Parts: sequence; structure tokens; C-alpha cells
Amino acid sequence: MQAICKAQPGVGLTVREVPEPSVGRGEVLVRVARSSICGTDLHIYQWDAWASSRLKPPLIVGHEFCGYVEAVGADVTNVQVGDFVAAESHIVCGTCKPCRLGQAHACINTRILGVDVDGGFAPYVVIPASNACKTDPSLPPEVATVQEPLGNAVHTVSAADVRGATVLITGCGAIGLFSIGVAKALGAARVIATEVRPYRAELAQRMGADAVLNPATDDALGYLLKTTDGLGVDVALEMSGHPDSLELITHAIRPGGEVCLLGLFGQPVKVDLNALIFKGVEIHAIIGRRLFHTWELMQSLLYSGALDVRPAITHVMPWREYEDAFERMASGLSGKIVLDWEA
Amino acid sequence: MQAICKAQPGVGLTVREVPEPSVGRGEVLVRVARSSICGTDLHIYQWDAWASSRLKPPLIVGHEFCGYVEAVGADVTNVQVGDFVAAESHIVCGTCKPCRLGQAHACINTRILGVDVDGGFAPYVVIPASNACKTDPSLPPEVATVQEPLGNAVHTVSAADVRGATVLITGCGAIGLFSIGVAKALGAARVIATEVRPYRAELAQRMGADAVLNPATDDALGYLLKTTDGLGVDVALEMSGHPDSLELITHAIRPGGEVCLLGLFGQPVKVDLNALIFKGVEIHAIIGRRLFHTWELMQSLLYSGALDVRPAITHVMPWREYEDAFERMASGLSGKIVLDWEA
Amino acid sequence: MQAICKAQPGVGLTVREVPEPSVGRGEVLVRVARSSICGTDLHIYQWDAWASSRLKPPLIVGHEFCGYVEAVGADVTNVQVGDFVAAESHIVCGTCKPCRLGQAHACINTRILGVDVDGGFAPYVVIPASNACKTDPSLPPEVATVQEPLGNAVHTVSAADVRGATVLITGCGAIGLFSIGVAKALGAARVIATEVRPYRAELAQRMGADAVLNPATDDALGYLLKTTDGLGVDVALEMSGHPDSLELITHAIRPGGEVCLLGLFGQPVKVDLNALIFKGVEIHAIIGRRLFHTWELMQSLLYSGALDVRPAITHVMPWREYEDAFERMASGLSGKIVLDWEA
Amino acid sequence: MQAICKAQPGVGLTVREVPEPSVGRGEVLVRVARSSICGTDLHIYQWDAWASSRLKPPLIVGHEFCGYVEAVGADVTNVQVGDFVAAESHIVCGTCKPCRLGQAHACINTRILGVDVDGGFAPYVVIPASNACKTDPSLPPEVATVQEPLGNAVHTVSAADVRGATVLITGCGAIGLFSIGVAKALGAARVIATEVRPYRAELAQRMGADAVLNPATDDALGYLLKTTDGLGVDVALEMSGHPDSLELITHAIRPGGEVCLLGLFGQPVKVDLNALIFKGVEIHAIIGRRLFHTWELMQSLLYSGALDVRPAITHVMPWREYEDAFERMASGLSGKIVLDWEA
Repeated sequence: MQAICKAQPGVGLTVREVPEPSVGRGEVLVRVARSSICGTDLHIYQWDAWASSRLKPPLIVGHEFCGYVEAVGADVTNVQVGDFVAAESHIVCGTCKPCRLGQAHACINTRILGVDVDGGFAPYVVIPASNACKTDPSLPPEVATVQEPLGNAVHTVSAADVRGATVLITGCGAIGLFSIGVAKALGAARVIATEVRPYRAELAQRMGADAVLNPATDDALGYLLKTTDGLGVDVALEMSGHPDSLELITHAIRPGGEVCLLGLFGQPVKVDLNALIFKGVEIHAIIGRRLFHTWELMQSLLYSGALDVRPAITHVMPWREYEDAFERMASGLSGKIVLDWEA
Repeated sequence: MQAICKAQPGVGLTVREVPEPSVGRGEVLVRVARSSICGTDLHIYQWDAWASSRLKPPLIVGHEFCGYVEAVGADVTNVQVGDFVAAESHIVCGTCKPCRLGQAHACINTRILGVDVDGGFAPYVVIPASNACKTDPSLPPEVATVQEPLGNAVHTVSAADVRGATVLITGCGAIGLFSIGVAKALGAARVIATEVRPYRAELAQRMGADAVLNPATDDALGYLLKTTDGLGVDVALEMSGHPDSLELITHAIRPGGEVCLLGLFGQPVKVDLNALIFKGVEIHAIIGRRLFHTWELMQSLLYSGALDVRPAITHVMPWREYEDAFERMASGLSGKIVLDWEA
Repeated sequence: MQAICKAQPGVGLTVREVPEPSVGRGEVLVRVARSSICGTDLHIYQWDAWASSRLKPPLIVGHEFCGYVEAVGADVTNVQVGDFVAAESHIVCGTCKPCRLGQAHACINTRILGVDVDGGFAPYVVIPASNACKTDPSLPPEVATVQEPLGNAVHTVSAADVRGATVLITGCGAIGLFSIGVAKALGAARVIATEVRPYRAELAQRMGADAVLNPATDDALGYLLKTTDGLGVDVALEMSGHPDSLELITHAIRPGGEVCLLGLFGQPVKVDLNALIFKGVEIHAIIGRRLFHTWELMQSLLYSGALDVRPAITHVMPWREYEDAFERMASGLSGKIVLDWEA
Repeated sequence: MQAICKAQPGVGLTVREVPEPSVGRGEVLVRVARSSICGTDLHIYQWDAWASSRLKPPLIVGHEFCGYVEAVGADVTNVQVGDFVAAESHIVCGTCKPCRLGQAHACINTRILGVDVDGGFAPYVVIPASNACKTDPSLPPEVATVQEPLGNAVHTVSAADVRGATVLITGCGAIGLFSIGVAKALGAARVIATEVRPYRAELAQRMGADAVLNPATDDALGYLLKTTDGLGVDVALEMSGHPDSLELITHAIRPGGEVCLLGLFGQPVKVDLNALIFKGVEIHAIIGRRLFHTWELMQSLLYSGALDVRPAITHVMPWREYEDAFERMASGLSGKIVLDWEA
């Protein structure tokens, strides 16, 4: 079969002929329907410091995908041949202390599909059965494939109490965009997003943001304080990885508020901790998805129609056009980009 | 009466003759038995940037004290003349959003005794009745007076789940020392403290620390990882306000762990947020005491004997020796220093 | 002024000429705009065992109302003359242990407007300022007056985790009806209500219930299990006070689910506790409103438009027609009935 | 090998020669060191209605045991040959909704060792590797074997907030006795137990109860109210399965308090729900152990020495004396009884 690979160290990805994988005990073979591109994939493409230190080429990349179970190994009970599934990308050990405490998202032995082991930018992929999350086939496949990053959004938003809250979301990449919809679905009264790119600002509005500010040109802090009678927002979700966003949040969060950190920062960042301490703020640093609480909640919201993330999915392209897809991704002129493996 | 005052802007404190205060509606007049010196009082003494921007001399200082109710104003129902009380130092408004949400510790209109209004380094002080916390007279007065800072410790420790936990406490000032005892009383399996001063390290041991590390000379991180099978500590309480402590915590906290921040930092501090995000850490920034949940819990622990903070109270001095007391405080060769107003 | 009173022990209510109340310290005088009738008012009208043991006539009844601040006593800071307010009906002491722990809804010294002290079925009423909850005047007065019972619904629904949940609500009196909307606003995926009266079943549907079952004629348990793949519902809210509803819930709640109890039962009721224990169910017994967390959340949902309770408000009548109103209320052919004091 | 079996339906247990079990994939073979007798085993012995409807003889009974890993099947990573382990008795599916939500204690497919599959009243037993909980060999084997029921106590106590609390425990069977120690270790200020048998009342005192009341002869409610200034206890743990205990709790719990239900009742029981509703009580119905949060917490408390349950372990007998052991168990003149398989 032909798959999108990091063939050797260095910039770029290439299509290579690789053997179809075969299923082992506790595993399932998935015929991929759609996969989607994450910011992490862009780092892998560009072979940045993190990527070059972590990946061991050759490797099939891609950790966001959905498809159909083609075969199951021994002892698989949670899915059957023919089931429509999406991948949880974190393979966890189940035996370390975080796993035993119900914090498998922080498993110390996590291996990631498409990063540490072969991923889903391929017509077929083998994954542990417990990573195959059954999905109602009525869910459009371009939605089903984004459940992994959507799960990041659901995990982040649900970590705070957004019920009736004024929520600030800094950064409208795909997960930021998703979070707008999730916050609304979970009872947020008002969602205010920040985004420098007009393209994504418009997507934010289509996802339901009550206001979208450009932190480069608007007085974001002034707006946020004014709209909250000088008090500040109840909840802030940092999804940009930009130090300026963090500083905005430090000033804009209300006393007693909650901050969730999902965006990764290029390097250690200066934080005015005193400001957060004087305000008695709770800070939730978020990684992955709660296994599998996040999936249950996410699918419930998707199935009931309370959450519709389609406005944030801007492109569905035949997988062979992946170079175009990565270029577009790098340009910032996209929401989530989906690759079609059935095209 | 004679009281310890910041008479005018500048370094130092002076004894001045001031009129005895009289009680108004909803207020109580307290005859002070003991007061105690906080790090904040030292800043006020030294007239640092914070103090000079916040205080409006002349002012009677002191926000940690206990004593006897001498008179009550109209509409006071929670205490009676003769009651033994300790002061909650934060006067809160009760009507702002944090107050209404049960987060009065983060009240946006907080005024602090001895900082914004006259305090308790005096033979008599008038405070709002709701700030007078009834205390069992069997509690030694040198313990009763430290309930305010002890409440910081109780608030901080109880914000995390220390049950069965390995707890790291960075910094063994008075609140750090108190926290050792509180963590033990609330079910911590092991408490490891860091402290550079041998004097305070010894107090930490007397408060029940299982180990006390000197971060300047010991390989604290190595010790913490080794003693937790490489995983890291379950809970870390930052009580030093030192950036190195924060960095230690960043590396020493286990995936899925909890960090509480109480110590104030001189300025914005660099934090490796990615490390905390990858580990999915919860961070609680702590201010004041939960009103009055913290007081109820603290007094319950004190009365039952589960908590004994006397090893951390190293000096009880006649109030007239306050200059000596501040000098000793500045030297670092003390735990909590108590001033006796009945001597 | 003329007010609706329980003039003496016995059945019925009467209009009596009473003096206009005058405002004291910490109190406000409210010119009533609308009041609404609670099931408790019906018990008072009918003078049942509870009412005759609790009320001390003569008394102006009514604990659900809104209006305009006409005058404020000394020391009132939270509202001003002219403000539009609704009443929190529970006057709490602020000093008992539950109050100090942030559980003022369980205050041991609670006095209730219209039950223990004069209430709001009158053109004017004096209440403690802290019971006057400022309300945006853009909220229709017939909605503003029902905030007290709506707060019961908000407290009950928000006590459980309804995010993405299948929620069962047994009983569609006013609070049950309100709860349908609240559950939806807070992210419930599906709300299934039970109600024997067709009139109220229709209101339930207008409030957004996904299904309304008649427990007298439908196989409610069968339906609930079938629709949840045999597992049971995630959350159940008991709002009927009927033993059969409780039994239904005992069987219909899923392992690990949550049950909220708000409806009062005529007498002790048999419960199959083993079934709840084997399923490890959490049970929240709910009284009043969390002060004032519930009000903050409720008003946020109302103002944002996430919650619209108007379908459950079926009648607005001039206050002089209160006998008709009580008759209709007793007939069960109503949702919430509002009395207009400006008519 | 010779094992204690329910050979056929009917009263009693018999020693039978059975084949040594052999280990399969994902399983471990345990050489049993000690096992202990649960009230459930007594029901099985006596062949009550529950036992006769659930058990399918022939079956090796016993679900509390510890021992040494003799062999491991394929794919076992959490334990090795030679490890000292204790058994988690609930075999859960890992794929049902409660399991996926982190509520495996409420797994809908639970099978129980010694009830649904062969148990540990035998020299050797095969269990799923994930049910083998590694235990520090320094823990005395008579303590290691009781971790299963001790886990019930830890789960129950830790479900409520006992920090600084006055805790009522009704019923001093083994789990009630354990709970006294657990509550103290987790910061309870005061533990008051009820027990009708003097033998067990004395054990309760040795476990650290501050008071032990005989509900048959003492005015338990009067005592509890008096000792809490008329307010009631903060937390109540029902561990007797007796309706009178539940009634006591209903009256003795304070407004805003928490009740945990662990004891099973012979039949549906009348509850004054209104009393609980008016007081806004939280009720936690408890089953099993949180997998494996409870084990982590329990072992941490045992290893640190914060918890010592040995006073509640009254008998260690050679396993061949099991008839005597069951007789003693039935007499009520015992705490936990341990069978020694190495004797």
C-alpha cells in the first residue's frame, strides 16, 4: 500500500510503498476513511527540534483518522469487523500510577500513533483495540476523523466550570475553534475569542463566538474588562501558545476564575504569578483526552446535535494532494484540513 | 493608648499615643492579648515598593492577633463581651461576584487590617464583628494569634488532595512550617520540605517533615525522583516565592499531580509551562482563607489535637521589644514571633 | 394597603387592609410588580398539617415576587432606589456552621418570606437587602418573579453533571418544567420527563423535553432502559414527591449515575437502597438555592438567552383574581401562575 | 490440591480435592498465603436467598486473599513471579460505559472471585493479572489479605470530606472497624461508632473511636446532638445494614452533611427522605473499590503507618479449622478472621 511517511530525517513527507500491516492479539486493522492534519504533523513535516528529537524514521505519520474495522485480532471484544471507528492517538500502559489513578491522559509510558508508532496517513493502519473508539456511522467521516483534536477541546473546556460563564479563548486554530462550540454546548453564556488572522476570526464567528478580537489591533483587555463590569472573565482557555495571550489572560481573568492551558509554548515563558495568586485563580494544564470520559462526553454532544464542528472543517482533499494540504495549513488560511482516503 | 504605628512614610515603626477606638454598629472592640509578626509586616517596616504604594500613614499596623471582646456594637450576634476571638484580617464586601459565588477570599473590595485600616499591634482594636472568629479559650493565646497565617497554610494544603500523598513543600517560613503539620493532619503519607537556612530546617523536622532538603547543597530533584520511583511527588506547595523552587517543582511534580502557589514572587517569573502541560498538572493559586470554611477546618484540627503548631512558634516577646522582634525576623533565625500585649 | 393574608388558622386566604411596612436598617422596601404561586402556597391555602404547625397568623403570604426598590434603610449597599429586584425567600443567619461553610441553603436558622415573616402577596413588602436580588429590567416581570422556584431547578440540575447526559425528570410541576430547560441549557444531550397530566405533559414538550412519558399508562422503565441500551439514565431528578417515581428512578438510574431529590414526600417512603448501593449511585438531596451561586448562574442563563422558561408560565392574572388562580392551581391545569400587582 | 468449596447447593462448605489451576494469557497463578472471611462468605455458607440465586456450584469460594505469584501467563506486565500480591475481587470488563467513565466499581459485567468464578480459599488460584495488586512484602500477610474489605472502608470514607469532621459510623463489623482507622488517618477530628455487641465495641475503641455507643441501650441521638451543639454530625457512614441505624443517621446528620451507605439491607427500607431533603444532605452509595484509586490510597496509608488495622484482625487460624472460623464468625465474637494457608 502507499502511505505518507517520514522516510528519513529531514524536512518533508513522502509517499512510500509499504506492506499492509497485519493484526495481532488485542489489535484491530482499520481501513482508513479520512484522516486530518494536526499542527503536530506540520512540525513533523518541517522537522523542527522537537520532531527531530522524538521521531525515528521511517514512520507512517498521522494520528487523527477514522475508518472501518477490517479485521480484529484475538481477544478483541469492544469492536467488530465493519464497525466505524476513530482513533484515540495515545497508547497508554494501564499500569503506571497515573493510569491506575484514572489519569491515563498523563500515562508515563504514552506512545503516540504517527509519532512513536506507525500512524493513519495510510489506507490501512493497525491500532490497539482499546484505541479504536466506536463511532456512529451517521456521523460524517470528516467529523469522525477530527474527534481526536476535538477531544482536546472537550477535555479543556470541561476541565473548567463554563456553565453560565463568560469564556475567553485565546487562539483560533482548530482546537480553539472547536472549543467555541464546546463551550456553548456546555452552557457558557458568552464566548469571546482572540485571533490575529482574519480568516480564522471569521471561522470563530461561524463557530458561534459572541465576539472575536484581534489582539494585535484591538484593545482586547479593555474590551474584556468593560464587558464584565471591570471584573474580568470567568474562564480563559489558552490555545495559542503565545506569551502575549498568557499575559492577556493574567490581566483579564476575574478573581476566583479558572484558566486552562492547552497551547504549547516555544520556550519557558514569563508569568506574573503574583497576579494569579492575588486573584486565587485555578489553573488546569491539559494534555490529551480523559480516557475515555472525554470520548463519551464528546460523542454524546455530537450525536445529540448540541455540538456542530463543521464550520471549523474548511477543507476535505484527496489524500494525494497532501503537499497542497500542508502548504495551506502552513499558510494559516485554513481551519481543520481533512484528507480523503476513499477518494 | 500606645500602639505600634507607621507614623509617616519611610523605614521603621514607632510607638505612638493614639486614642482608644470606639465601637460602631456591627463592630467589636477587642482587647488584644497577643499579636504576631508576618512577613508582610517586615515589608511594611522596611517600606518596600509594595508598602509605600499601598499604605496611607499614619496607621496602626498588625493583622495577626487575638484577644477578648470588650464591647460590641449594635446588631452584633456572633460574639459576646468576654469571648476569646482571633482576627480574620480580610474585610470583604459580601456583594461582589466572587463574594456571592462563595469566593470571598478573592473579594474585589478586600481591605486588610493593619494595611488598609488600623490593625492589632495595639492594646485595643475595633474590627467588624464578622472578622472576629470565636476561639476556644483553652487554645494557648500564642497559638490563637497565628490562626490567620495558619489559615493560609490550611487553605493551601486543603486545596489539593494530600490524602496518602507524597507532598513537597518549598520554603519553611512560618506558613511553610505550619503546612507540614497540616499536611500530616490531613493524611499526607510523606512530607518533604526544602529550606536553605539550617535554623528553619530544624523547625521543619520538629513540625514532622519526613525529610528536609537544602536546595543549595542537596540534589533535591534527584532525591525527590528517587524516592518516588522516578515518578515525582503527588503534591507540591510553593511557599518560598523563589524562582528556583518553582523550577524544582516543575520538574519534581508527577504527571497528574497538583501544585499550590502561595509564596509571592518579586517579579514575573519564567515558567516551563510545557512541562506542566505535558504532565496535565492542576495548579491552585492561593490567597487568604476561605471564609469561613478554612477557619472551621483549622479550629477543628487544632481542638482535636490532630494539629500542633507550637514547634513553629519560636518566640513570645513583650510587645515593647518589637524592634528586637523585627530584627530577629529579618535575620531569618526565627519561626513565628509573637508579641505579648498582656506582659 | 390591601394584601393577601392568612388572617387566622383555617382554610383559605383573605384580602385584608394592612399598614404599609416601613424600612429598617439593612432592609429594602419593594413595590411588588408580580408575584407567583408556589405549591407551598396551596398547602398554606388548604391549611394542611405542615401549614398549621408552621404558620402563625395573621401573616401576609407569598414568597415568589419581584418589584422595584422604593426605599432603602441604613447600611444598604447592594441595591438602590429604583432597582428592579426579585426576592430570595430564605432569610439566613450567616453565622451558623452551614452558613460559615458556604451552605447557607441549609442554614439552621432559616426564616422564609410568606411563611415565617410577611411575604410578597401585597403591593409593598420589606425584605432584608441581602434577599433583594438585582435583576436586569429587560427580563419580563413574569419571568423575574419566578426566579425563586427557577432557582430550585437550577440548584437541582447543577448539582449533578448533566453534560452530555440522558436526564430523567419525574414530575412536571413548575420546577420540573423549569428543569427541562435548565438541563438543556447546561448541556444535557437528552431529557425525558414523566407526567401523568396531559396538560403538563404538553408543557414539558414545549419546554424542550425529548420525550414525555405517562407513568400511569406507558412502560416508562422499559422505555428508559431501551433508549439507553439497557444501561439506564445518567441523571435522574425527582420532582414529583411520589413514591412510584422514586421506584422508577431506582430501577432506571444507570450504575454510577446521579439522583437529585427535590420533591417532598407525604411521609417516609420505602426505598430499595441495595439497588442504589450495588449501582454506586450519588444522591443529592436539594433544598433552596445556593446563596448566591445559584442566582448568578440562573441570571447568566436567562440573560444570555440560553434558558427561556416562558412556556412554563401559563397564566398571568390580576392579583384580585387570586381565588381563581388558586383554584386553577389546585386543578393541575396550569404551569406557573403569576399575579400582577400593577394591573 | 484441597480447597474449600461449595460442592453443591445447600448449607455448608466442604474440602474437596480439585486440580491445580493453570495460568492463561493475561492471568497469574497465585500461591495463597492467607485468605480472610467476609460476611458474604457467611451468606454463601448459610446458602441464603441471595447465595442460592447467584452461585453455580461446584465452586471454590473466597474473595479475600493474598499470596505469591507462582507463574504468569503471556502478556502479563504488571507483576512478576515471586511478587507478593493481594486480590481485587471484582473482575471488570473495561469496555462498558461505567468502566470507560472511570467508574469500574460499577461495571455492568462485574464477575466476583469466589462468587462467580473460583476463588482463593485454596492453596492456588488463578486470577486476571490486573486483579493482582502488588503489595509490599513488608506488610504482614494477615493485613495484606484484608485489603479487599479494607478497600471498601477506604472507598467509603474517602467518598466524603472527613477532614476535621465529626464522623458517625453505624455498625462495627470488620469494615466499620476499619473505617474508624481510615477516618482518623484522613483527618477526622472525632469518630463516634455505634455497635450493639460489647465484643466489637471494644474493638472499635482499640481502632481509635472517640466514643462507642450501644444504640440498644444508649440515647445515641441525644449524645450525637449534644456533642455537636445540637447541629448533628458532619459525616455518617452506614455499615450495619440495619434500618434503625439509617433512622438514627437521618436525625443525626447535620444540615449540609454527607452520608455514605455501604451496609446492605435485607429488604427495601423506609426512609424519611424529607428530613434529608430539608437538610440538603449528600448521599454516597458505595460499592466495591475505585479501581485502582482506592488501592493506591489504601497502600499509601498502610505503608506510611498512618493506618494500622491490626486491632480489627482478631483471629488467624490454620485453614483446616475453617468450620470453627465460620462458627466464630456467625457468633459475632470476632473482628476479621484470617485463614492461614501456609500453616
